[in-house]
Amino acid sequence: MIIIGEKINGTRQEVAQAIRARDAAFIARLAREQVDAGSRYLDVNAGTAPDREPEDLAWLVRTVQAECEVPLCLDSANPTALRAALAVVDRTPMLNSVSGEAQRIAGVLPLALEHGTDLILLALDDDGIPATGEDRMQVVDRLVGLAVAGGLQEEKLFIDPLVTAISTGTNNALLTCDTIRRIKVAYPKAHITCGLSNISFGMPLRGLVNRTFLAMAVQAGLDSAIADPNDRELRETMLAAETLMGLDRYCLNFNKAFRAGRIGPRPD
Amino acid sequence: MIIIGEKINGTRQEVAQAIRARDAAFIARLAREQVDAGSRYLDVNAGTAPDREPEDLAWLVRTVQAECEVPLCLDSANPTALRAALAVVDRTPMLNSVSGEAQRIAGVLPLALEHGTDLILLALDDDGIPATGEDRMQVVDRLVGLAVAGGLQEEKLFIDPLVTAISTGTNNALLTCDTIRRIKVAYPKAHITCGLSNISFGMPLRGLVNRTFLAMAVQAGLDSAIADPNDRELRETMLAAETLMGLDRYCLNFNKAFRAGRIGPRPD
Repeated sequence: MIIIGEKINGTRQEVAQAIRARDAAFIARLAREQVDAGSRYLDVNAGTAPDREPEDLAWLVRTVQAECEVPLCLDSANPTALRAALAVVDRTPMLNSVSGEAQRIAGVLPLALEHGTDLILLALDDDGIPATGEDRMQVVDRLVGLAVAGGLQEEKLFIDPLVTAISTGTNNALLTCDTIRRIKVAYPKAHITCGLSNISFGMPLRGLVNRTFLAMAVQAGLDSAIADPNDRELRETMLAAETLMGLDRYCLNFNKAFRAGRIGPRPD
Repeated sequence: MIIIGEKINGTRQEVAQAIRARDAAFIARLAREQVDAGSRYLDVNAGTAPDREPEDLAWLVRTVQAECEVPLCLDSANPTALRAALAVVDRTPMLNSVSGEAQRIAGVLPLALEHGTDLILLALDDDGIPATGEDRMQVVDRLVGLAVAGGLQEEKLFIDPLVTAISTGTNNALLTCDTIRRIKVAYPKAHITCGLSNISFGMPLRGLVNRTFLAMAVQAGLDSAIADPNDRELRETMLAAETLMGLDRYCLNFNKAFRAGRIGPRPD
């Protein structure tokens, strides 16, 4: 699984405070612990008002880069903020995200094409989140078409089928899995990612629901997640799911992670 | 999920001892706790030598029936033992099992047809467990054909795609899921069951591997399992998986189980 570490997000109160206070040590610690736990990208979201966001996002980028070398996932809908961040990134980042919304296509897509970034594509448009897998694919087809025509290889695309809460729709998990399978067939070289925890909004035992959904989604074709890599139980499920998907020859990774104490009972 | 409670099995040492000692209270307790935990069938396996098995299995059947009313799953390859058990069952049982092995077809299938039982069909034959989903389906097709021609409705069949250890074959979980999907397409009214825990033989963290595999197999179409219903974490995954599969309108079952303390943190 390609984990995009989700914790450096200004919509979280303690991160917002660290951004306001320019507390670089706090941000560096969040970055380090997510990298150590296996994140392949780190999402950075300033979550601040548009006039502050360019400066805040650029500060986040510089701060995280000073601590570690993984590529960043620049998480903003604000082209000015993205441009400010792109001006200071060391490594080609991922952009989060382009949807079928006119404003995103006009504002974010050209930046992705210009810089040759990895790119998250969301299966929604100005009419909202389509109610069927078929309709979500219409949005995805259009976005992949634009990205590839603009010079991005399919391998650089992370397609998000969208996860909506099971508490608001009995078939919502099935719908996401159906969309994942369609994406997998249509774009076998693209990655498929999502924000897992949306599935369990409004439910008790959210971790259980998230982990069970993860296993199902991986079975359908998911190979990436925007998640908290320090969630030990989620990591355990990811490793078990990869092994069960035939991606772990002789169960070597699984056994190695177990021996290293990265999964299984915490050492006392 | 239709759980077939697996614990009354004479290959387990304490059960063997209870059978030898005719310890009815011990067996009754095993039956009761499995029914209370949601078993829809109780597997009964005497696990004894052929000359003792008819008497032992019939004793098990009478003992379990004296305690509870769920149908039994008579688990033996010995036609004489099955006949002895069938003579004393109160409710139409399930037979475990008929495979493509000549001896099972000759010895067990006629009993199932004669008594109109539910029936587990195993995707293996005298050459062993086929190495591909396609070949497993050839066995399944033949067995379903024989059962239906003999008068059993598809709804009474529990087809077992066979689960083999991931530690002995990197693609073994994929293979089972592939077979499940094929069965689901070919026989939509039949049930699909398996012995889940085979997947994790030889691995650390077996419960984790079993639960993750369960979620994947349910996503592929599994709707039954031969399992320990008192395994709380497995039960949690079953409930979450059913909810995610769209089988739990408004998440009512899940929330009810949570409020009743059947899933989630154990009450102190």
